[in-house]
Amino acid sequence: MQQYGHGGKVKRMATVSRPGSTGDTGDAPAGPERQRDAERTRREILEVAIGEFARDGYSGARVDEIAARTSTTKRMIYYYFGGKEQLYIAALEQAYATARAAEQMDVDHLDPVSAVRTLAQLTFDHHESHPDFVAMVAVENIHHGEFIAKSAAIAALNSPVVAVIGRILERGYASGVFRRPAEAIDIHLMISSFCFFRMSNRYSFGAIFGVDLLDAARREHYRQMAGDMVVSYLTAPPDPA
Amino acid sequence: MQQYGHGGKVKRMATVSRPGSTGDTGDAPAGPERQRDAERTRREILEVAIGEFARDGYSGARVDEIAARTSTTKRMIYYYFGGKEQLYIAALEQAYATARAAEQMDVDHLDPVSAVRTLAQLTFDHHESHPDFVAMVAVENIHHGEFIAKSAAIAALNSPVVAVIGRILERGYASGVFRRPAEAIDIHLMISSFCFFRMSNRYSFGAIFGVDLLDAARREHYRQMAGDMVVSYLTAPPDPA
Repeated sequence: MQQYGHGGKVKRMATVSRPGSTGDTGDAPAGPERQRDAERTRREILEVAIGEFARDGYSGARVDEIAARTSTTKRMIYYYFGGKEQLYIAALEQAYATARAAEQMDVDHLDPVSAVRTLAQLTFDHHESHPDFVAMVAVENIHHGEFIAKSAAIAALNSPVVAVIGRILERGYASGVFRRPAEAIDIHLMISSFCFFRMSNRYSFGAIFGVDLLDAARREHYRQMAGDMVVSYLTAPPDPA
Repeated sequence: MQQYGHGGKVKRMATVSRPGSTGDTGDAPAGPERQRDAERTRREILEVAIGEFARDGYSGARVDEIAARTSTTKRMIYYYFGGKEQLYIAALEQAYATARAAEQMDVDHLDPVSAVRTLAQLTFDHHESHPDFVAMVAVENIHHGEFIAKSAAIAALNSPVVAVIGRILERGYASGVFRRPAEAIDIHLMISSFCFFRMSNRYSFGAIFGVDLLDAARREHYRQMAGDMVVSYLTAPPDPA
């Protein structure tokens, strides 16, 4: 299910963590096959780990529990990753790599208003379909981004979304349809806030206001709202009053 | 520093958790004074607990550590609150009560556009000045709102903000200055998303995009943006393209 979006990680795994490189038997699969098995195991562990860290947080998640949900053992997890912290960082990297892969949005063929609306709606869809990514980012922020800071891989995953928005803005200002000056990063902030909060805060929002932000019957309404919000922000004159 | 916004809690404390009700000595202070001491101690514990749960999450926080930062003991904390879960729920209730007290916004004397802008900016200020509230809500959502659901006190804290927004919308539609039909709860969602995310996700956003969302030099910019976002959403015609 999870895709590797970051080739460097696979390479690192293949050179550093190759289980079965000792203890050969005549029946064991040959090198490349064994390497594929190792990659498969590592991926399985990461998928389970993302779910566990997303559900229980960094402190609450237990490597024992993660091991119990995979076809491997706690000892193997330590062998592959080194420890809980490294496993968490690898899971965070995997969650971000998947997220980045989904950010490859092709909206350059659309007019600027349709393009920014489509981008908002794809961001909305993406957050909705990756609740574990949302939860892991929330967990990481509880920890003040301490582990992201230790990951070279995440820092190297340049987010394409700001460049995509930048191109939409250029075209929108050139054609005159966008009237409020804005930076691409701020438009990304506005869209992300709405899409992330709907997922991350749905429990407290539901408990306090009695509204289910993930109600299927209101999905199109919120999705439309994400687009309307950013389109009206950009198309409105600086002082609409 | 923290204010009690919920009288019921103080009463419960006074009747259920009155330390010193046994073991009297002739020199001990009289009843009302002792009760004030108990309230002061309870408040001190809650203030420290909010900080610890906000920083380390529910699973990561330790009652030992909370006790070490107060003038009381772990045993006393258990005596007052019963256990870690009850302490966490009381801390969450206290954080919400403080938040609600700050939501008493008087904007009815302003024209609808100024009123909704002011409301957005006060919400912005409120989130900024209560980072522990933001962190505790984030922690609670990691736990899928499991503890909020157990708190009758939080359910009873009716949020005045939706009614405030409802009155602004009524006036705005009546005068014709607001042109897009919207529900008060959705306007609250839009404003909260932006103000909450700026605080809750500042670490990951900073690590990935190299932008400090709490940079004092950009504070007015973001605060203005919160107001512009909601004003342009409401004043724009339904299809600005």
